[in-house]
Amino acid sequence: MKIEIITIGDELLLGFTTDTNAAYLARELAAHGVEVVRRATVGDDAAAIAAAVREALDRTGAVITTGGLGPTADDLTKPAIAEVFGRRLEIREDIVAMIEERFRVYGFRGPMPASNRQQALVPEGARVLENRHGSAPGIWIEDERHRWVAMLPGVPREMRGMTGDVIIPELRARMGEVREVVRSRTIRCMGISESHLADQLGDRARGVRGLPLAYLPSVAGIDLRLTTRGMSSAAAAALLEEAVAELRPIIGAHIYGEEDADLADVVLQRTRERGLRIAVAESCTGGMLGARLTTIPGSSDVFVGGVIAYDDQVKVKLLGVDPGTLRTHGAVSEETAREMAAGIRRSLGAEIGIAITGVAGPTGGTPEKPVGLVWIAVDVSGRVRANHRIYPGHREEIRQRATQSALDVIRRMLGDA
Amino acid sequence: MKIEIITIGDELLLGFTTDTNAAYLARELAAHGVEVVRRATVGDDAAAIAAAVREALDRTGAVITTGGLGPTADDLTKPAIAEVFGRRLEIREDIVAMIEERFRVYGFRGPMPASNRQQALVPEGARVLENRHGSAPGIWIEDERHRWVAMLPGVPREMRGMTGDVIIPELRARMGEVREVVRSRTIRCMGISESHLADQLGDRARGVRGLPLAYLPSVAGIDLRLTTRGMSSAAAAALLEEAVAELRPIIGAHIYGEEDADLADVVLQRTRERGLRIAVAESCTGGMLGARLTTIPGSSDVFVGGVIAYDDQVKVKLLGVDPGTLRTHGAVSEETAREMAAGIRRSLGAEIGIAITGVAGPTGGTPEKPVGLVWIAVDVSGRVRANHRIYPGHREEIRQRATQSALDVIRRMLGDA
Repeated sequence: MKIEIITIGDELLLGFTTDTNAAYLARELAAHGVEVVRRATVGDDAAAIAAAVREALDRTGAVITTGGLGPTADDLTKPAIAEVFGRRLEIREDIVAMIEERFRVYGFRGPMPASNRQQALVPEGARVLENRHGSAPGIWIEDERHRWVAMLPGVPREMRGMTGDVIIPELRARMGEVREVVRSRTIRCMGISESHLADQLGDRARGVRGLPLAYLPSVAGIDLRLTTRGMSSAAAAALLEEAVAELRPIIGAHIYGEEDADLADVVLQRTRERGLRIAVAESCTGGMLGARLTTIPGSSDVFVGGVIAYDDQVKVKLLGVDPGTLRTHGAVSEETAREMAAGIRRSLGAEIGIAITGVAGPTGGTPEKPVGLVWIAVDVSGRVRANHRIYPGHREEIRQRATQSALDVIRRMLGDA
Repeated sequence: MKIEIITIGDELLLGFTTDTNAAYLARELAAHGVEVVRRATVGDDAAAIAAAVREALDRTGAVITTGGLGPTADDLTKPAIAEVFGRRLEIREDIVAMIEERFRVYGFRGPMPASNRQQALVPEGARVLENRHGSAPGIWIEDERHRWVAMLPGVPREMRGMTGDVIIPELRARMGEVREVVRSRTIRCMGISESHLADQLGDRARGVRGLPLAYLPSVAGIDLRLTTRGMSSAAAAALLEEAVAELRPIIGAHIYGEEDADLADVVLQRTRERGLRIAVAESCTGGMLGARLTTIPGSSDVFVGGVIAYDDQVKVKLLGVDPGTLRTHGAVSEETAREMAAGIRRSLGAEIGIAITGVAGPTGGTPEKPVGLVWIAVDVSGRVRANHRIYPGHREEIRQRATQSALDVIRRMLGDA
C-alpha cells in the first residue's frame, strides 16, 4: 500500500515549527508495511490545500493530512477537502454534544462559543474518527473509486494517539496480509570513534547479510542502523536478528544497548543488580550527570545525590579536596578528579563516586589545558579509574559528551550483568 | 518572489530523520522576502525526484532542493534534474582538482576513489555553487524561460552555510528592491497561564495593531508571537516595535525577555548586576537547575555550586535539614524546602539559595501529595519566598517546569534592573 502525507499550516511553511508529524507518521506507517511515497506541506490556504490533495489523490489515491482541524478561521482543511470530493459540510449534532460535554467538564459556564461549532462540521458521507486525546475529531472521506483522505489534527500528541488508535488498525484491515514492510534495528555504541568502529568491522563496515549499515554519530556515541525493505515482517525480523548477532561479538563491549536504550538507564540497572549506590561530584557539567540519572523513573534506589562543585571552594569544603592539590595540579587534573570522586563517595556513603572536571569553554582554555579537556574519575569501592579526553564541539556538546563518557566508565567498570 | 522547497532522501521519507532543513530554509527565505509556497519530500528515486521538480517548475518556476549530492549510488539529484532540463552531465576538472586537493590535505594516499568523481559531475550549462562547508558543491541550473533549480547538500551545517553564502545573495540580487518580507517578534512570558494572559490582554488577546497574536506554550512558559506579512522590512520593524510597546505594559512583570532569551541567562545577569551569588539545593530535579545555569558561558562568577539532595539523608547531612522536619512534614513540603534553601546558602556562603523538592512521578504520589506537586523556596539574604504548584505532564516535563519556575521566582524577587 502506498500513501502520501500532506502537513498543513502556515507555521510549518514559514519554518516557525519543525515538522515532526510527518517523520512520526512515516516511521509508524513503514513499520506496518505502508509506503509513504511523497510528503508535502502547504499553508493555511484553501486553494493550496485542495490542489495538493487533488494531485496526491490522482497520483497515489491515499492521503493522510495533519493540521487545520481547529476552531479558528485559519483552519481550512475540512472545507478545502470537502470541495475536492464535491461534498457539502454539515453540522453533526453528536459532535456538538461531545464538545459541549467537554466544556462542562472543564467548568466553563454559559453557551459554547460559536467558533467551536466549526469543529462539529463534517463533509457529508464522511466518517468521524474518534479523538481520545483532544477536542477536534478526525475525518475519513472516501469516494466511490476508493480514493481516500484521512484528516488528523496537527497537535503532535493527538496525531500520534489517533495514528495508533484509528489509522494503523484501519490500514491493516484494508491491506489484508502484509507482505512487505520496512524494519530497522539499531545498535548503540559508546567509547569508540566512527573510523575505529569501521576498521574493527572490516568487511562488514558497509553492510552485513546484504543489509546496508548506517553510522549515526551523536553526543550519545555512535548508533549503527540496519534496515530491511521489501520483506515480510517475519523474514525482516529474522534477518535483522542474524545481522545483529553477527555484529555483536565483533563490536563487543562498545555496545551499551539497542534501539532507544539510554546509557543512564543501563548504568542504573547494572548498579542496582550489584546492590551498589552512586553519588556524583560535578564541576563543568554543573548537575547534568545527576539530571541524566534522575531522568530515569525509579533511580532513587541507586542514586543517592551529589555535589555541584562549580567553585573551587565547594570542592574543598564539601568534597574534601586538598587545597594543595588544587594549587599544584589545578582544578582540571587527574589528581583533583580522583579526590572529588573519593570525597563524594565518602561523604554520601555510596559505593560508587563519579567526578567530572573540565574546561567547557568557550573561554578559560590554555595551551596545556585547552577548551574541551575533561578529566573523569570513577571510584568503585576504592578501585579508581581516571581518564581524560579533549572533546570537540561547543560548550553544551562538550558537557553532554563528558556526561555520557562518565556513565560509560561506570558501565565498563561494572562489566556485563 | 515565490519558490518551492524539495527535500530529497529515503531517510526523510521513512521518518528516520526529521526534516530540519526545510524549516530553516523557509525561515531564512521568508525573512528576506521570499515566499515558500509549497514544500515536498521525495525519496532517493530518480523518477520521483524528476516528477516533483517538474511539477514545482510548472507551478512556481523556482525550486531549492536539498540532499542527494553525495558520492554514493543513492545520490540521484543531479542526474534526475539534468534530465528534467534536458541536459547531459559532464565531468568538471576544476571540481576534480578541488576534491583531490582535499584528499591530500586530509592525508589520504594513492588515487582518489572513483566514486568521488561523481561529485564532479555537473549538468552542462549549470553553475557550480561553492561550498566552503563540505565536499559536495551546490548546483544552479536555469532554462531560457528563467525557471531555475538550486541544488544544495543535505547535511544541515553545509546547507545552512551555503544558504547564507550563496542563495540569499543570489535571490536578493534577482529580486531588486525587496518590497515585502515576513518578520516576527516574540515576547517570552513566565508565571501566567495562557487563559489568564488572554484575559489580561482583553481586546488585544487575538491581535494588536492588526497583527495576529500566536500563543506558543511550552515548558519555558508562553511565547507570544507577532508576525507581519506583505510589508517592507522597515515598515515591518516599525509596526512590530509599536505592537510590542503596546503589549509590554499590559503583560508587565510576566515578560522575562524577547526572541530566544533564556530565563537562566536573565537570572544570571540580574544576579551579577546586584553583586550576588547563587547556590542550589535540588531534590526531584536532580541537578537540572545547576545544569541550566551552567549552560550559560561565564556563569561561574555568579553560580557557586550546590547539592543534589536526592536521598533524604543528603538533605540532613549536607543541607542541615532537621530530621524532625522531614518526619513531621515530609520531604516534599514548604518547611523542608525552606530549610534546604537556607542550608545551601549558609553552607556555600552564597546570598541566594534555591531549593526544589517535589514528586516527579510516575510513581510516589499520594492523595495529599500527588505526582506533579513541587515546592520551591528561594532565600535571598534571609528574605524567603516559598510556593508550590502541581505541574501537569510526565516526569521530565514536571522537572523542566519546576526548574523554569525556580528561576522565575529569583527573577521576580530581584526585580527589574
